[in-house]
Amino acid sequence: MNQLSERYLEDFAVGQTFGSGRLRIEGERALAFAAEFDPQPFHLDEAAARRSIFGGLTASGWHTAAVTMRLLVETELKPAGGLIGAGLDECRWPRPVHPGDELRVECEVIAVRPSKSRPAQGLIKLRTTTLNQHDEAVLVYVVNMVVQRRSEAGEALRHPTEDRPFGKVVLAGDAQRPLSPQKPNPRIRKAGP
Amino acid sequence: MNQLSERYLEDFAVGQTFGSGRLRIEGERALAFAAEFDPQPFHLDEAAARRSIFGGLTASGWHTAAVTMRLLVETELKPAGGLIGAGLDECRWPRPVHPGDELRVECEVIAVRPSKSRPAQGLIKLRTTTLNQHDEAVLVYVVNMVVQRRSEAGEALRHPTEDRPFGKVVLAGDAQRPLSPQKPNPRIRKAGP
Repeated sequence: MNQLSERYLEDFAVGQTFGSGRLRIEGERALAFAAEFDPQPFHLDEAAARRSIFGGLTASGWHTAAVTMRLLVETELKPAGGLIGAGLDECRWPRPVHPGDELRVECEVIAVRPSKSRPAQGLIKLRTTTLNQHDEAVLVYVVNMVVQRRSEAGEALRHPTEDRPFGKVVLAGDAQRPLSPQKPNPRIRKAGP
Repeated sequence: MNQLSERYLEDFAVGQTFGSGRLRIEGERALAFAAEFDPQPFHLDEAAARRSIFGGLTASGWHTAAVTMRLLVETELKPAGGLIGAGLDECRWPRPVHPGDELRVECEVIAVRPSKSRPAQGLIKLRTTTLNQHDEAVLVYVVNMVVQRRSEAGEALRHPTEDRPFGKVVLAGDAQRPLSPQKPNPRIRKAGP
């Protein structure tokens, strides 16, 4: 990994966006993934799939999620220490993925905050959308990622009141489901460009 | 699939629990999954993994999620029409999974509600916990699943006021993050045993 291109917590700012390349969901691979992890008729059998809620063969939603991870790893997001997801706030599969679909990912930083208990790290919140070749969303989630902070000896953000508890912070772009408290923390804005 | 063992919306009730068998995460398989979908040093390289936040090689969180799906398919949950996830309300990976870990799944029905717009179906909400061989949670999510309703000509639940909008419903066991409105809908209880 190119050390120079790694981003620390202080390098992330609300509103930054990252896009991925494209990855095609091959039919054989979708079948093999489903056979191993999601062996249900609408993922494995053409005729059964036509009679199902999907109207045709689909990839497992977990295959879509796994491919999304692959695409994210290859974006310019590149947090120092790697892409480490603590969890998702929400996750939806608004449309099925069919064999032959070509997927890409767009993501946006919607919150940045230092950890109150672990001074060496913080969290970024990313809204991540996986789109097919028709620019239709097939997977949308909000993920919380653990990101390393740059040394406090550097020029970056300092947190003299680190012992004061941080609440969850809502910032622009996170309109779909507000977290609490709703008031943006003014210190977070310092992480901006 | 055994038709007799399939469950319709009316067969689900809040408080029902389902457990899975066990599945071992083989080291070679974890490496192959990570190489394809999550190619990061802490999933691929023993030495790099020791220096990482995890302190040793770990399976991709998406591998854990995929294995969880496999285990769910094999439980007695068996909704008519298949296990069809509309989305997750929340999802966390509280502990890493290491090669050799043996996983199993426990899940609990925490809400059951008919769809207001699609009379033939409804939603169940499941709290799903994936545990390792030490009974430690490694993945926890709340999933909304689309489930078919039994024909209205049958003995099952009827909804004369189906045109009245349903809100999201909170029922017992969903204490971790309440939804709104908080008041249980009395009609939901009719879906019980």
